[in-house]
Amino acid sequence: AADLCGIDKVYRIGGVQAIGAMAYGISPLAKADKLFGPGNQYVTMAKQLVSRQGIAIDMPAGPSEVLVMADETADPTFVAADLISQAEHGPDSQVILLCLSEEFLQTVLVELDLILETLPRAEMARKSLDNSIGIVLKDTDEMLAFSNEYAPEHLILSVDGASEAANGVVNAGSVFIGNYSPESAGDYATGTNHTLPTNGYARAYSGLTTQSFMKTIQYQELTPNGLMDLGPDVIRMAEEEGLDGHARAVSVRLKKIRNEKF
Amino acid sequence: AADLCGIDKVYRIGGVQAIGAMAYGISPLAKADKLFGPGNQYVTMAKQLVSRQGIAIDMPAGPSEVLVMADETADPTFVAADLISQAEHGPDSQVILLCLSEEFLQTVLVELDLILETLPRAEMARKSLDNSIGIVLKDTDEMLAFSNEYAPEHLILSVDGASEAANGVVNAGSVFIGNYSPESAGDYATGTNHTLPTNGYARAYSGLTTQSFMKTIQYQELTPNGLMDLGPDVIRMAEEEGLDGHARAVSVRLKKIRNEKF
Repeated sequence: AADLCGIDKVYRIGGVQAIGAMAYGISPLAKADKLFGPGNQYVTMAKQLVSRQGIAIDMPAGPSEVLVMADETADPTFVAADLISQAEHGPDSQVILLCLSEEFLQTVLVELDLILETLPRAEMARKSLDNSIGIVLKDTDEMLAFSNEYAPEHLILSVDGASEAANGVVNAGSVFIGNYSPESAGDYATGTNHTLPTNGYARAYSGLTTQSFMKTIQYQELTPNGLMDLGPDVIRMAEEEGLDGHARAVSVRLKKIRNEKF
Repeated sequence: AADLCGIDKVYRIGGVQAIGAMAYGISPLAKADKLFGPGNQYVTMAKQLVSRQGIAIDMPAGPSEVLVMADETADPTFVAADLISQAEHGPDSQVILLCLSEEFLQTVLVELDLILETLPRAEMARKSLDNSIGIVLKDTDEMLAFSNEYAPEHLILSVDGASEAANGVVNAGSVFIGNYSPESAGDYATGTNHTLPTNGYARAYSGLTTQSFMKTIQYQELTPNGLMDLGPDVIRMAEEEGLDGHARAVSVRLKKIRNEKF
């Protein structure tokens, strides 16, 4: 991939020192114009600081989250495992379970306890489960409405007609469709990007894409005839705004075009 | 255009109070997820403040700038008018002229004085011309290299082979090609967007486009067979990172798939 893109330098660096080195161009690194990728709270702050100096960053990423929508077709063992795989990230991770019955919720809680008994990072997971909630709602539409309002970083759709439900997703970073699409598959193997909007930012932001590495520049070229057509409107609007200089930039040209014609 | 896009509400509001009303959703306005468009220094600060709460803004726009590249085929009267039309914006506007001879530069200075004699906003323009510079360089390549380093908001190419020169532009907000494409035509009539990266931000940022109003969401759906293929690699990588919960989210599914098969 690097070869196809013409990338011939790869550095293995990390932490705030890496952000500083890339932002200011400490030799042998060239000064970077865009700095993307996830990091801890110190890296996030470093990225925000250098972004004030004109360096584009992806987004100020916060703690990771998952929202699982589960109906009676979901497997409570899978659901519990998905919640745990997010909760074990760190004590500030948040997991949310939306389901359709109190019984399902209780079954998942039992499964959670079972996993925690033998999980190496159980302490971390317990802390983040303390910040987490399970909510019983009426139907898939109500769960979708909640999810779109919450705008989760990761959204797992363990519901009947998951593909159809996916069409109703308006705000989310990355969506996992059906019972065999765990979030960890997205983290490591499905090829979707792992740098995603957290903390409700999915309402306004997209995850990282190849587009994030691109830039657009606007171009315009007017012929003398084109300026003859557009010019009078430009002059009128500029004068209306009291910007006489703007009007003159057009009128001096129109004068020359007319002189050359006659 | 509004009708085609399904827009049925248009409000005529401005200033920091408009930013606040849109960011927090003061009735009758709905809470906005994205806030775009230029504004003065107070509006810019208000936009930066609300952006910390997850609202996407276009970019922190600074004072406006133009860079004019002019060779012997340029008309000094046009060039002076273009510089003035930027300089009259405000006392902190910056205009830069790159040209190929001291004589051309002097002629433009004389033309500038002529325009200032009768310009209504002459005082404003004089102040911003005080921050501005003219530089004599060797050839178009040298001018392009300077411009790409400076990354101007507006770039006017008044040079022979302007279209070819445009291909060499790497960093700029909006490019005006040839002697009949004044910046004011772009401000009012060519249809390019007027919200552009200033202050060197064109190195990393694009001007506003229809894309700015869009958002991407990532989707993935794995079949049981797909997870059978990818799963073992996910488990290995998760375990390597000490994320046992991530591995389990896959292994509980693989277990069920294998049980159902035999």
